[in-house]
Formats: sequence, structure tokens, C-alpha cells
Amino acid sequence: MSDLKLRILKAVQPDLDAIETALAGNLNPHLDLVREVAGHILFSGGKRLRPLLMVLSARVCGYTGDYDKTFSTALEYLHAATLLHDDLVDGASLRRGKPVAYLKWGNSIAVLVGDFLLARALSVSAATGSAKIVQILAELTEQMSQGEVHQLMRKGDIHLAESEYLEVIRRKTAVLFETACRVSAVLANAPEERESALASYGVNLGMAFQIADDLFDYTLETAQFGKDAGADLREGKMTLPLIHGLQQARAADREWMVSLIENPHFSTEDFRKLAGLLQASGAARYAEQSAEKYILKAKTALSVFPHSATLETLIDIADYALHRPA
Amino acid sequence: MSDLKLRILKAVQPDLDAIETALAGNLNPHLDLVREVAGHILFSGGKRLRPLLMVLSARVCGYTGDYDKTFSTALEYLHAATLLHDDLVDGASLRRGKPVAYLKWGNSIAVLVGDFLLARALSVSAATGSAKIVQILAELTEQMSQGEVHQLMRKGDIHLAESEYLEVIRRKTAVLFETACRVSAVLANAPEERESALASYGVNLGMAFQIADDLFDYTLETAQFGKDAGADLREGKMTLPLIHGLQQARAADREWMVSLIENPHFSTEDFRKLAGLLQASGAARYAEQSAEKYILKAKTALSVFPHSATLETLIDIADYALHRPA
Repeated sequence: MSDLKLRILKAVQPDLDAIETALAGNLNPHLDLVREVAGHILFSGGKRLRPLLMVLSARVCGYTGDYDKTFSTALEYLHAATLLHDDLVDGASLRRGKPVAYLKWGNSIAVLVGDFLLARALSVSAATGSAKIVQILAELTEQMSQGEVHQLMRKGDIHLAESEYLEVIRRKTAVLFETACRVSAVLANAPEERESALASYGVNLGMAFQIADDLFDYTLETAQFGKDAGADLREGKMTLPLIHGLQQARAADREWMVSLIENPHFSTEDFRKLAGLLQASGAARYAEQSAEKYILKAKTALSVFPHSATLETLIDIADYALHRPA
Repeated sequence: MSDLKLRILKAVQPDLDAIETALAGNLNPHLDLVREVAGHILFSGGKRLRPLLMVLSARVCGYTGDYDKTFSTALEYLHAATLLHDDLVDGASLRRGKPVAYLKWGNSIAVLVGDFLLARALSVSAATGSAKIVQILAELTEQMSQGEVHQLMRKGDIHLAESEYLEVIRRKTAVLFETACRVSAVLANAPEERESALASYGVNLGMAFQIADDLFDYTLETAQFGKDAGADLREGKMTLPLIHGLQQARAADREWMVSLIENPHFSTEDFRKLAGLLQASGAARYAEQSAEKYILKAKTALSVFPHSATLETLIDIADYALHRPA
């Protein structure tokens, strides 16, 4: 484990423990099957990054109430709901090294338990008594579902532009990070300047995390990543390394890459060759640099806050975006 | 068209027109495909019963604001969201005489556009500024998804008890009617007594509508019903006529009915024979009487309100539950 990860974990362990307790305590389904399926996706080694960002953001805004841990579960429930639905949409097979829910319990149960978790997220939010917070969460959900539809519409489209890719990942991933940070400022009654700063930190951090995640699909092995190596390519997802790689490639390489995109039954050897090409052409490095730019923007946004240990942790988390599974 | 239906339609036409305008105006998706799929389910001849109940309930509570029509769309969006997901869960093929969305655009799009509509419903609710209203809507969504899971768990279970069937339809259908009526009282700042009365009217009306709907599956032809005749049986749904019919049947008939439930590829002739058995054994009449009891309860709950034209329409709607498509 890297020093950075150790430092973050040491700083946030009490928060993570409190979040874990709240996650189990707030779930309250009426049916055992709903509890089992929700538990499968919720308690399978997720990083709790979104609720953690929420709790830390509330703290840098001087929040002193006792609803932050409970409220932060809304973000994890919402995240879990979208994972249940997205794995089905993507035709994924593994998540955090475990079989995905729709393969284990069927499409129907994955859809319905996802709906339950989505509703639970909004119930937990409504219990804040703030219609503004619920409004933000509901709009977030609209954005996320449309980001997924957008991604699906462009599946396997070798002409997807970088700008459109960035718009898709903003909607499907970054707005959730943005909301996690922003609603904390609302919960803490922080001034508008701090709400904006945290929103900017969140959205840029989310972009960096998604770009890094998309990059890891070409640089990490299954065991490190918890997903199938090459899963994005197999699902027809056009991500930044591939988009840039296609632009940079010589004609012959490009033709071969296109044939791989169009045939999802490629071999491990083919996939390794593609990953090698993306390294050699500088496409992997390009994606890394893009993520680094977002990380810098995220950290810069925090400059309105005075120095504190919590602020340091938020900065560490931004730096961590590109250093995960390591 | 029956006199009752004509009288209701005459009384509510201006409200229905306003609801229709609000439904198209509030939808606002970013993507054309989302608009198309949402439009397919939203604008395909639905009765607008839920938003209408909301508008009428607000009016009997003396509501004089201008958000009732807009707010009522939340209930129709939520209803449409659950239809998109439930058709997939049930493996249905027709809805209001048209092919269902998941068959037309695929499972993924049906799931994601359902999520969008669910989120839109909660956005519209949050715009009331009332966290209580959002809380009620979110809890409703939790109940509905669990009602569907429950139904799915008991699919094809010939031992399903009437009490468990009633619990399933309460969660999957009646709580939506209950909420449509109850939140209007909240929106109108009506006293607790009126909120409870409208909740009771709504939940009993919802039970009556679902029991009638389940009965129509055995008494109406496809053209009248807009769904495949025998669809419930084919999807393994154990509904009241069938549950009661199994209890009442002679041993030989019972054995034959069980074989039909266990084999979803029955012929039209077989289905007609079953429908005939349910008529002859009194099971259809039993379901009708059960619906009548709920209709009476619904109407009785309204006794706390003074007489008005709107109250008469609510009573007419209750009477209409058993007289639909006629």
C-alpha cells in the first residue's frame, strides 16, 4: 500500500467506520431478498469514496450537526443503484472480483433492487428537511441516467470525439462526485462561495477518477482491478486512451484497432497487443495527463478554504485518483 | 361509453387538458432518445388517473395555488417509470395495444429511461419546497419496488394465500393511489383528518382498481383490454380469481389448472376453458365482490368532506373501478 493511501486511511478511518455502521442501519428493506441483493452490491469492498467526500466536505464547511454520516449513505445507495443497473446495461460480468447481481439473481431483481436503493437514497435525503438537497439529488439522478443512455447510444462508435466522451463521463460519473461535495455545503449552510468551490473540486475529481478508471482498464490485470481486463473494450466503451490512440495510430494499426473494437470476442493476446500500442503511441500517457489536469483543477478549487487537516485529506484524495490500486 | 364514464370525463376534461400540457412541458430530457422512449410510454393513451386524483384531491381540500397540475405530473412520471421497469420484469409484450418499450429499444434503454422518469418525478416533487412531500414520494417508490420483488418471488406459486396477494397489490399499486390523494392534502395544507381520509380513499380505490384489472385479465378479450388475454397467467402472476378458483375447484379441475399455471405455453382454447371455470366456480364473482368492498370503503372514507361537485367526481371514479373498459 502506498504512503499516500496509508495517510488517507489513517485520517479517515473513524469516518469510514461510522459510514459503514450507517449504511447497514439505514437500509431497512421489508424483504430478505432485497436485503441480500442490496448487501451484495453495498458490502463488497467499495471504497466509500462518495460518502467520505460528503462527510469531509461538510467538515471543511464547519458542519457540527449529527446527520452527516446518515446523510452520506444517500450517495452510496445512489451509487449502488446505478451500479446494479449499469452492470446490466453494460453486460458486465465481474464487479470488485465478484459476479454481478443481474447474473446471480436475474435482470428483474437487479432492476427492482436498484429502484429500491434509488428511492432509499432520496428518502434519506428528504429526511434532512431540505427540499433543495433533494432537488440536487433528483437532478443528479436525471443526469446520470442520461449519461448512461448517451454512452449506450455511442457504443462501439469509432468516431466518438474526445469532447463527447468528456460530456458522457461528466454526466455518468463526475456529477455524483460534484453533488457529494456540494450538498455538504448546503447541509452545513455554507456561503455560496464555498458551495461553488466544493462543487468544482467534486466535478474535477470525478472526471479524474473516471479517466483514471478508463485508463486502468488498459494498464492493470484483472486481479488488481477487480474487473475483467479489457471489459470496457468488450462492452464497446470508447474511452480516452482508445479515442486518442485511434487518432494517433498509423493507418495499418488503426485498421487493426477498429477490427478489434468491432469484434468483442478478441483474445487476451490481442488485448495485450492493443494495450501495448496505446502505451507506445503515447495515448495512455495522454489520458494520464488529462486526469492530472483535472486533479490540479480540483485542488485549486479548494484554495478558498483555510488550511486544516481535513483540507489536507481532500487534497490527498485528489492526488490518489491516479494512484489507485497501487 | 357508459353514462358514468361520460359524466366523469365531462367533469374533468379541463383538468385532463391541463395535465396533458404539463406532462409534455415538464419532461425536458437532454437527449432525443430519452424523449422518444419516455413519450412512447407517457403518451400512449394512459387514463391520467393518478394525476387526476391528485388534482381533484387538492381541490376538495380547498387548494387555490397553481402548482397542482405541474405537481400531478410527478405521479404520472413515477407510474410510467414503474411501467417501463415492470414490463421488463414481467416479460410483457403489449401495453395499451402497443409493443412494450424493452422489446422496441432493448432492456438497457427501458431501465435507464425508467430511472430518468423516476428522478424527474422526484425533481417535480422537490420543486414544491416540501421535504415531507418528497419523503412520501420516496417511501412510495421503496414500497412499489418491493411489491414488485415480492410478486416476482411468488411467481407461479400455487400456494400463494389471498392475504399475501393483497399485500403485494397494496405495495405495487394501491400505495401509488394512496399517495396521489394524500400528498394533495399536504400540498393544500389540509388538516390531518382530511389527509387521512384521502389516504384511505386512495388506498382502497387502488386495491379495487388492481383487483378489477386482475379480473379483467380473465373476462376481457385482448382488443378491449390492450394487453394479451391471459398475460397474467403467462407471466406466472397468481391473482385473486385464480387463487380463489384453485381453492374452490374440484380435485380434477384443480390438477388441470395447476398444469396450466406450470406451463405458460397454453393455447387460447385452454385459457378460455380456465376463464369459464373461474366464472362457473364463482371465483370471478368473488373477486368482483372483493373489489366492491374496497370501493365501498373508499367512498365511505370521503364522508368527512362537505358535498361538492368535485366530491361527486371522486365518488364516480370509485364506482368506475369495476366498470372500465365498458
